[in-house]
Amino acid sequence: LSNCLGGLCDRPKNTNVRLSLPAVCFVWQIAMIILFGIFIRYDEESDAHWIEHRKHKNISSDIENDFYFRYPSFQDVHVMIFVGFGFLMTFLKRYSFGGVGFNFLIAAFGLQWALLMQGWFHSLDYTDGKIKIGIENLINADFCVAGCLIAYGAILGKVSPVQLMVLTLFGITLFAVEEFIILNLIHARDAGGSMVIHTFGAYYGLSISAMLYRPNLDQSSALHGSVYHSDVFAMIGTLYLWMFWPSFNSAITDHGDAQHRAAINTYLALAATVLTTMAISSLFQKHGKLDMVHIQNSTLAGGVAVGTAAEFMLMPYGSLIVGFCCGIISTLGYIYLTPFMEKYLKIQDTCGIHNLHGMPGVIGGIVGAITAAAASEAVYGQEGLINTFDFVGDFKDMVPSKQGGHQAAGICVAVCFGIGGGVIVGGILRLPIWGDPADDSCFDDEPYWELPEDEESIPPIVQYNNHMRNKDVVESNFSMEQH
Amino acid sequence: LSNCLGGLCDRPKNTNVRLSLPAVCFVWQIAMIILFGIFIRYDEESDAHWIEHRKHKNISSDIENDFYFRYPSFQDVHVMIFVGFGFLMTFLKRYSFGGVGFNFLIAAFGLQWALLMQGWFHSLDYTDGKIKIGIENLINADFCVAGCLIAYGAILGKVSPVQLMVLTLFGITLFAVEEFIILNLIHARDAGGSMVIHTFGAYYGLSISAMLYRPNLDQSSALHGSVYHSDVFAMIGTLYLWMFWPSFNSAITDHGDAQHRAAINTYLALAATVLTTMAISSLFQKHGKLDMVHIQNSTLAGGVAVGTAAEFMLMPYGSLIVGFCCGIISTLGYIYLTPFMEKYLKIQDTCGIHNLHGMPGVIGGIVGAITAAAASEAVYGQEGLINTFDFVGDFKDMVPSKQGGHQAAGICVAVCFGIGGGVIVGGILRLPIWGDPADDSCFDDEPYWELPEDEESIPPIVQYNNHMRNKDVVESNFSMEQH
Amino acid sequence: LSNCLGGLCDRPKNTNVRLSLPAVCFVWQIAMIILFGIFIRYDEESDAHWIEHRKHKNISSDIENDFYFRYPSFQDVHVMIFVGFGFLMTFLKRYSFGGVGFNFLIAAFGLQWALLMQGWFHSLDYTDGKIKIGIENLINADFCVAGCLIAYGAILGKVSPVQLMVLTLFGITLFAVEEFIILNLIHARDAGGSMVIHTFGAYYGLSISAMLYRPNLDQSSALHGSVYHSDVFAMIGTLYLWMFWPSFNSAITDHGDAQHRAAINTYLALAATVLTTMAISSLFQKHGKLDMVHIQNSTLAGGVAVGTAAEFMLMPYGSLIVGFCCGIISTLGYIYLTPFMEKYLKIQDTCGIHNLHGMPGVIGGIVGAITAAAASEAVYGQEGLINTFDFVGDFKDMVPSKQGGHQAAGICVAVCFGIGGGVIVGGILRLPIWGDPADDSCFDDEPYWELPEDEESIPPIVQYNNHMRNKDVVESNFSMEQH
Repeated sequence: LSNCLGGLCDRPKNTNVRLSLPAVCFVWQIAMIILFGIFIRYDEESDAHWIEHRKHKNISSDIENDFYFRYPSFQDVHVMIFVGFGFLMTFLKRYSFGGVGFNFLIAAFGLQWALLMQGWFHSLDYTDGKIKIGIENLINADFCVAGCLIAYGAILGKVSPVQLMVLTLFGITLFAVEEFIILNLIHARDAGGSMVIHTFGAYYGLSISAMLYRPNLDQSSALHGSVYHSDVFAMIGTLYLWMFWPSFNSAITDHGDAQHRAAINTYLALAATVLTTMAISSLFQKHGKLDMVHIQNSTLAGGVAVGTAAEFMLMPYGSLIVGFCCGIISTLGYIYLTPFMEKYLKIQDTCGIHNLHGMPGVIGGIVGAITAAAASEAVYGQEGLINTFDFVGDFKDMVPSKQGGHQAAGICVAVCFGIGGGVIVGGILRLPIWGDPADDSCFDDEPYWELPEDEESIPPIVQYNNHMRNKDVVESNFSMEQH
Repeated sequence: LSNCLGGLCDRPKNTNVRLSLPAVCFVWQIAMIILFGIFIRYDEESDAHWIEHRKHKNISSDIENDFYFRYPSFQDVHVMIFVGFGFLMTFLKRYSFGGVGFNFLIAAFGLQWALLMQGWFHSLDYTDGKIKIGIENLINADFCVAGCLIAYGAILGKVSPVQLMVLTLFGITLFAVEEFIILNLIHARDAGGSMVIHTFGAYYGLSISAMLYRPNLDQSSALHGSVYHSDVFAMIGTLYLWMFWPSFNSAITDHGDAQHRAAINTYLALAATVLTTMAISSLFQKHGKLDMVHIQNSTLAGGVAVGTAAEFMLMPYGSLIVGFCCGIISTLGYIYLTPFMEKYLKIQDTCGIHNLHGMPGVIGGIVGAITAAAASEAVYGQEGLINTFDFVGDFKDMVPSKQGGHQAAGICVAVCFGIGGGVIVGGILRLPIWGDPADDSCFDDEPYWELPEDEESIPPIVQYNNHMRNKDVVESNFSMEQH
Repeated sequence: LSNCLGGLCDRPKNTNVRLSLPAVCFVWQIAMIILFGIFIRYDEESDAHWIEHRKHKNISSDIENDFYFRYPSFQDVHVMIFVGFGFLMTFLKRYSFGGVGFNFLIAAFGLQWALLMQGWFHSLDYTDGKIKIGIENLINADFCVAGCLIAYGAILGKVSPVQLMVLTLFGITLFAVEEFIILNLIHARDAGGSMVIHTFGAYYGLSISAMLYRPNLDQSSALHGSVYHSDVFAMIGTLYLWMFWPSFNSAITDHGDAQHRAAINTYLALAATVLTTMAISSLFQKHGKLDMVHIQNSTLAGGVAVGTAAEFMLMPYGSLIVGFCCGIISTLGYIYLTPFMEKYLKIQDTCGIHNLHGMPGVIGGIVGAITAAAASEAVYGQEGLINTFDFVGDFKDMVPSKQGGHQAAGICVAVCFGIGGGVIVGGILRLPIWGDPADDSCFDDEPYWELPEDEESIPPIVQYNNHMRNKDVVESNFSMEQH
C-alpha cells in the first residue's frame, strides 16, 4: 500500500466527485435508515409510556426526566460541533466553504453511525435486542463525532469529501470500540474525553496525515494562510468552543455536584490558558505582536487538558495550574513543534491539532490519573468517593490508587487506537479513487464548490488591466509615430 | 388593484422613508404600549404572588415553575429568529444590512403584536379580561414572528422597510386566526408548526411576491448573488437554525417525554437531510461541485417536515426517512422549481422559501396526519395516547384515525390563509406610497442604509484614477510639446 | 500627573509589548493561582459532599441543585461577555482583531480576579476563611467583567493591551467595593446591574478616556470607521447581546417568579427599543437612511435601562415604556451628544458607551427607584413584597418608599465610583510606560498583531505600483532620449 499499488497514484488527479459523493451519501444514509429501523427505539424517558413509567417508579415530577438535566448542555455541545469546529476551520483564505461545509457533512453522518455503534456497546436492551436512545445518547453521538472532526483538522484542505466520509465511518467505529475498552473494560473515568475524544482524535488524524504526506504541498503555499476577515470568522469558532467547553466537560457527568464541579473546573482552566497563550505568543514573536493562530487555537488547550479530571475534586487552583501549563505548551507547539513535525516527521498538520488536542489530551489523561490516585475519603466523603469514581458492581473493591493506574492505561489505549487506526485508514485513503485534490489545488474551495465571482476584488484588476491594455496600444502607436 | 390605480405605479420610485418609517414605528409602538397597558399582565408563574400560589397548589419546589421547563428552549428559538433567520438572509453581496437589519425590525415589532393577538385567543383570563403571559407566550410570539420572517424571504431585497412592517402587522393577525382555527377549532396538533408556521408563512410570502411581480428585475441581476464572505455569513444563520431546530420543535410540547421525543426526532431528521442535500447538489451540478445555496437552505428542510409529527411516536427511523426525502425534494426544488416558478408563474422567490418552507411544510402536515392516524394504544400506551393527542374535554371521544383527518384539514386551512392573505396584503403593498425600490436598485442596501466607504476595494481604483489623471495631464502636455 | 511627569509623554511612542505583556500575564496569572490555592474552594452544591448534604437537608432531588436553576442563564451571559461584547467591538475596519482579542484577554483575566474580590465580600465562609464558589459566583464574575468591557468601549483602539490589563485589575477591584456598598450596605436591589455594572462601567471608561484625551486623534481618522463586512460582524455582537439580555437580567434573581418576570420584562423593553431606535435613526439622517452605528448600539439601551427594575412588578407596559424612551435617548445621544462631548468636553468615546450604558444605566437606576418606591402589598402580595425586596434580617422593617430612596443613593455611589476611579486609573494609564499607540496608529491592529497579507486588496496596488515603476523607468528613459 505504501507504494500505492504500483504507480496508480501518479495519474493526474481527478477531483470530480459527482458520482462518488452522491453514491456514498445515498448508500450510507439508506443503510442508516435500515439499521435504525431494526435497532433503534426511544428509551423510557422519551417514550410515550413515560407517564406510566413515572407513576410506576414514583417519580414526583416531569422535571426529573433526564431531558431537563442535560438538554441545555446538549445544545451547547451541538453548537461546539457545528459552529465551533466548523468556524474554527474557516481561517484559510479560500477554504472557508470546505471548512464549515464538510464539517457539517461528516458530523451529520457521523452522529447517526455513532448512535448505532455506541448504542450496541452501551444502550442495548437485552430483553428485546433494541438500542434505547435518549438525550444522553445524542450527547455521546456528538462527542463521538468530535473525534473525527479533530482528525479532519490535520488534513484540512488536502482531501476530498469522499475521503472524509470514509475517515468518519472508520473513525466512529474505532472510537466506539476504544471508548468501550477504556470506560467499561478498564473502568477509567473520562468525563470530558481528554483521552477518549481528544487523544484518540488527534493521533488518528496525524497518522492519516502522515500516510497522505504531500512532499510538494508548497505548490499551494499561496492559499495556505488567512486573510483578515477569515481570521475573524475563525474567532467565532474559537469563542464558541471556549465558552461552551464547560458544558462539554459536564454534559454526561453525574447529576448534581459532578456537573456543577465539572463546569467550574473547565471555566477556570480555560481562563488561565488565555493569559499564558497571549504571553507566549507575544514573547516569541518579533516586536511582541500577537499571532492569531495561537489565539484561535491554544486558548482552548486548557479545556482539553481538564477534560478527564473535570468531575474530580481537582480544586479551583488545580484547574488554573492545568490551564496555565497548557497555554504555554500548546503555543510553543505551534512555534516549534509543528514546523519540526512537518520537516522531519513528514506530518503536515493544517490546524495544528497536535498542539490543541494531542498534547493537551495526553496531559489531561495524566492529570486525571494523578487526581484519581490522590483521591481520598477526607476530600470526597465516603459516598462522594464511590459516586464520583463509580466504585460499584464489579468495581466495588476498587481503590483510588489503583484507579489511577487504570486511568493511565486508558491513555495508552487511546494513543494506540489513534495511531493504529490512522495508519490503516490512511492507507485506505491513499487509494487513487477518492477524488483528492492535486498538490497545487490544496486549501482551495474551487475543486469541490461552485464559487461566486468575487465582485469586490476582481473589478479593480480587470479595470486596471483593460485600461492599461488600451493605453499600451495608444502608447505603442505613439511610440511608432516617434520613430 | 391589479392595474395599480391607473398608472400611479409608473411614477419614478422614491425610496425616501424618512417620514413614513418613523411614523409607522412611533404610531405602532405607542399603540402597543396602550394595548399592553389595558390587556397584558403577568401570569401566576411570573407574578410576585407565585410564592403564595405555590403553597396553595402544593407545588414542592420553584424548579416546577414553567420557566425552568422552557427557558432554555425559548432562548434557542430566540436565537433562531434573530440570528438564524437574520444571518441566513445576509447571503446577498450588498443586502446584508437589510437582511439582518430589517429582520431585526420586523421581529421586534411582530412579537409584541403577537403577544396581543395570540393572547386574546389563548391566554385571556375571563375573570378580569386580562391576557396573562409567561414564558410559553414568549415562545409562541417568536413562533408567530417566524411566519412573517419566512414570508420576508420571498421578497428579500425588493421591498421597503415600511412594506415589511405592513406585511408583519397583517401577517401576525392572519397567523393568530389561522392558528386558533387549526389548533383549537379543528383540534389538529402542530408542535413545530409545519402547517401553522411554515406552510402559512411560505404561501403568504409567495402570494405577496406574485402580487409584487417585477418583470424587469434582471436590471438588478448584478447584485442578485453572493460573494465569498457573504456566503460564510449566511452559514452562521443556517447552522443556528439547524442546531436549534430540536428546541424549536420541542419548545411548547408537553413536559416530559413529549419534549424529549420531539428533540430526538428533529435531531435525526435534520442529520439525514444534510446527506441527501449534499448528494443531490453534487449530482446535478457540472463537475459535481456543491452549491452553497443548497447547503444553506435545503439542509434545513428536514426540520420543517418533522415539525408536526415530532412529538408523536414517529420512531427514529421514521424521522430519518422524512429527512431523507426532504433533502432530495428541497434541493431539486432549487434546481428546477424556482426557475420554473419565476418564468411561468411570475413568482420571484429570492430565498427559495417554497423549497425550504412551502413543500416541506406541506409534507410535514401530511406526515403528521399519517402518523396520527396510525397511532395505537399498543405504541403509545393508554395514558400516553390521551396525553400526546390531548383527547380530553370536548375531544375525549376522538380516535386516532379521525385525528388524522383533522390534521389533514389543518394543512388546507394553512394553505388557504397563506394564499388568500398574501393576495390581499400583496395588493395593499402595491400601492405606490410605501417607498419600495426601483427595479434597478433591488438587492441593494444603498436606498435604505448609510453605507461605509469600502476601503478595501475602492482605494486601488481611486489611486489609480488619480495617478492616471496626473499622468494624462503630463502626457498631454508632453504630447503637445511634441507637435 | 496631568502634565505627565515633565515631558516624558512626548517621547516617540514605542508599542512593543514583548516584555511588558508577557510579564503582566505571567505575574498576574501566578498570583491568581496562589490566591486561589489559599482562598477558593467548592461550595456545598459543587463539592463531592453534596450527596451527604442533600440527604442531611432533605433535598428531594439533584434537580434542586442551584446548577439547574442558573446554568442556562450562565451560558447565555458567558456568550454575551465573549461573543456579544467581543464582536460588537469588531466594527472598525482594521481593529477587529483587537476588538475581539483584547476583549477575550481582559475578560479571561478579569473573571479570575472577580471571583476573589467578590468572594471576599460575598462568599467568605468565616468558619474556615475560604471563599466557597458555585455557579452563581461564575455569573457574578462575568457580570463584574462586563463593567470593564464597557469601559474598554470608550477607549477602543487607543490603548495597549497592557493598559487594558491595568484598567481591568483596578476596575474589578473598584467594582467589587462599589457593589458591596450598593447591594449590602445601602441594600439597593440591582438584578441586571443598571447601576452596579452599566453606570459604573460607563463613567469609569469615560473618565479614563478623558484622562487619555488625544487632541490629534484625527490623524487616525482614515481608520476610524467601518467597512461593509466589519459592520456585519458587529451585528453578531449586537444580536447576541440583544437576545440573551433576558438571561443577563434574570441570571441572579430569586428562583421562581423573579427569574421568570425579569426575563419577560427585559424581552419586552428590548423589543420596544428596536422600533424607536430605527425611527430616530431614519428621522435624523439625510434621505431617511438608517445608520448601522445606531442599530448596533442603541437597540440595546432598553436592556440596560430595565436592569434594576426587571425583577420588580414593572408590568409589561412599563417595560415597553422604558424601552421606548431609551431607544430615543440613546440614538439622539449618538447624533448630538457624542460629537458634543468630543468637541467641548474632550471625551473621545469610540463605541459611544455613554449612549449605550451611561445614560440608560442612570435611567435604569431611576426607574428602579420609582418602581421600588411605588411597590405595594396589593400588587406584590405580602410574602411577594418581602421576597422581592429582601426585607429580612437587618432590613425587615424597611418599607417600599424608603427602599426607593436607597435605590437612588445607589445611583450616586455608582457614578462617583465610576468617575473617581476613572480619573485615578486614567492618570496611572498616562504614564509613558504602557506601550500605547501614537495618534496616527490608533484604531489599527498593526502595532499589536501579526496581520495576514490581505490578498484581496493588496495585489492590485502592488501590481499597479510595480507596473508604474517599470513604466516610469521606461518613460524617463524615453524622455531623456527626447531631449
